[in-house]
Amino acid sequence: MTDLLVSRPDIPPLTVPPRLLLGPGPSLVDPRVLQAMGTPLLGHLDPQFVEIMDRTQVMLRYAFQTRNPITIPVSGTGTAAMEAAVANMVEPGDSVLVCVSGYFGLRIADMARRYGGDVEVINRPWGQVFSPEEVKQALDRRPAKIVAIVHAETSTGVCQPLEEIVRIVHAQGGLIIVDAVTSLGGVPLKVDEWGIDVCYSGSQKCLSCPPGISPITFNSTAIQKLEARKTQVTNWYLDLSGVGKYWGKERTYHHTAPISMVYALYEALQIVLEEGLEARWQRHRTNAALLWSGLEAMGWELHVPLEYRLPSLTTPRVPAGVDEVLLRQRLLKEYNIEISGGLGELKGKVLRIGLMGYSSRPENVLLLLAAIQKVS
Amino acid sequence: MTDLLVSRPDIPPLTVPPRLLLGPGPSLVDPRVLQAMGTPLLGHLDPQFVEIMDRTQVMLRYAFQTRNPITIPVSGTGTAAMEAAVANMVEPGDSVLVCVSGYFGLRIADMARRYGGDVEVINRPWGQVFSPEEVKQALDRRPAKIVAIVHAETSTGVCQPLEEIVRIVHAQGGLIIVDAVTSLGGVPLKVDEWGIDVCYSGSQKCLSCPPGISPITFNSTAIQKLEARKTQVTNWYLDLSGVGKYWGKERTYHHTAPISMVYALYEALQIVLEEGLEARWQRHRTNAALLWSGLEAMGWELHVPLEYRLPSLTTPRVPAGVDEVLLRQRLLKEYNIEISGGLGELKGKVLRIGLMGYSSRPENVLLLLAAIQKVS
Repeated sequence: MTDLLVSRPDIPPLTVPPRLLLGPGPSLVDPRVLQAMGTPLLGHLDPQFVEIMDRTQVMLRYAFQTRNPITIPVSGTGTAAMEAAVANMVEPGDSVLVCVSGYFGLRIADMARRYGGDVEVINRPWGQVFSPEEVKQALDRRPAKIVAIVHAETSTGVCQPLEEIVRIVHAQGGLIIVDAVTSLGGVPLKVDEWGIDVCYSGSQKCLSCPPGISPITFNSTAIQKLEARKTQVTNWYLDLSGVGKYWGKERTYHHTAPISMVYALYEALQIVLEEGLEARWQRHRTNAALLWSGLEAMGWELHVPLEYRLPSLTTPRVPAGVDEVLLRQRLLKEYNIEISGGLGELKGKVLRIGLMGYSSRPENVLLLLAAIQKVS
Repeated sequence: MTDLLVSRPDIPPLTVPPRLLLGPGPSLVDPRVLQAMGTPLLGHLDPQFVEIMDRTQVMLRYAFQTRNPITIPVSGTGTAAMEAAVANMVEPGDSVLVCVSGYFGLRIADMARRYGGDVEVINRPWGQVFSPEEVKQALDRRPAKIVAIVHAETSTGVCQPLEEIVRIVHAQGGLIIVDAVTSLGGVPLKVDEWGIDVCYSGSQKCLSCPPGISPITFNSTAIQKLEARKTQVTNWYLDLSGVGKYWGKERTYHHTAPISMVYALYEALQIVLEEGLEARWQRHRTNAALLWSGLEAMGWELHVPLEYRLPSLTTPRVPAGVDEVLLRQRLLKEYNIEISGGLGELKGKVLRIGLMGYSSRPENVLLLLAAIQKVS
């Protein structure tokens, strides 16, 4: 029947169990967003699609609290947005300071080295924040053109205060890249008010959109740095000089946008608009507080002090006598609930529970607490 | 009410006109695939999702006609897959020969230079193919570690014969990267039989899946080249040493897969399996022939000789007296039909009509021909 070398495999249809996603991302996606993704496609240069792109940018500016014209979604997951920030800002030989207190800080440092940055790292134990003084001391020792720091560390559950650090970075003439993957749309983030130069995020955390498209914003300082580059950006796909023209006034073809993902982001941002950022931040705080008090009532300890605790991601310490792998397996198998284990320094020491976007609901907290009691 | 710097914008709901996509991609997406995208999410490390990943790889091997273990979808659009091929294969100083007879050949050459390749280009006028002799002569003048060529040029409508060229490249000790963005799933492509070392594609062409996920396959020669690298891959997101471990046996977290896009690709590949590759290739040929004879009956000339004409993308020359921009605008406005204009050398000289995947149907050909007659 066929002379093909590789014959047709027998593969069952797609079936997906109904998971309650309470891990570090993806979060549950609002059914309205799932429906938007099923919308038939437009061409990526269709005037109607261009209008959708424009409106998406307007909504993203609200979410980021910025007026930056270059506020766009990158055509990839959060790591691609991180790489877009690093690849465009870091030129070979540039001095870069990366503040590392978790997995994603490490990743930024790795990327900055790959793009030729002269990288210095300052460290904090995972679960702690950097003080402005530490950053100032590091920059006094060696000024840096670029400082990178994580606002919301998905690996530790820490929310890093930024305003004072941004001032210090600017005072010594550098620019700052902020990772807001786990804060955008769920935790207060004010790009313009705080003076952040480059800020990126993901879609699958507090925006509750599927992964595959990732917001990023560059202010005029960042654009000037980009325009003053002496070398081309090595990364073609994420080169802002091309991507920016596709999303900007020129509409020059660069690469095909992930159209259905843009629809999804559009709808997810509509939901953010309807709820309003401040109400959304409050909801994340309220439901996180419910989780925290529930865990503490069970005698569990939370790894991050209240002052720096992220509402979107909680890291309870694994209690003595609890097999955390088994706990997670049983939650998944018996109750279809996904939470996650620790990474790196915190592997085996903490669990990671996300209450992000559509997942941040009191009924999910109640169910999780009840299920943990059943299986631990 | 709010002390936010950027207040809530007023943005209308997402509305999308019903377009008939007959351009160079995206093609129409099968309603089954749209529905699959609306499936609620799994975590990207969920055992059930891992199973979906495994099965997707099995189906991709059938589509590519390869047994390569490393056959995976890249988390980005076709350009990201192109960049994955170049970034992983090209080390600084590597001699690279790029065969350019269209827009996408140019793009490969640009990328190869960015990654430090010592790039030589051979050119053909857009719309023509390379002969094996030309490639041999170029390699006799200067051997190349890597040769890159486009199988199906989306900018010209040419299908480049490959078998003899692959033999020549291997005979002089190089490896070959093939761009199959507009052929995979619609035009005969036999990776193992032809001996292709690296082959990549997109999802939004003959697979009729939305853009945002892009298949790629590396054979053992390519993996050996990767493992023998002296320098790290600059591109973190597309570094196969990380991506491959996530999709391979290790399942090490690298980046969050675009889960909904994986669902979409899964369903799109199921449809390829059900139809069978050979029937699918035949359908693309039959419907293209219908288009070609219809256009010729109207007195239009086709830019590419029959022997090298792609069934998935047709490039009629713009007839004298026809305003091609106006023609396309009227097709879009009056009949909701998208076709595209020429790129680069062929701008204003040809139109580009795609009959790919779900768009390749006789009723679409009839409607397009009738609509062209109305507006030209």
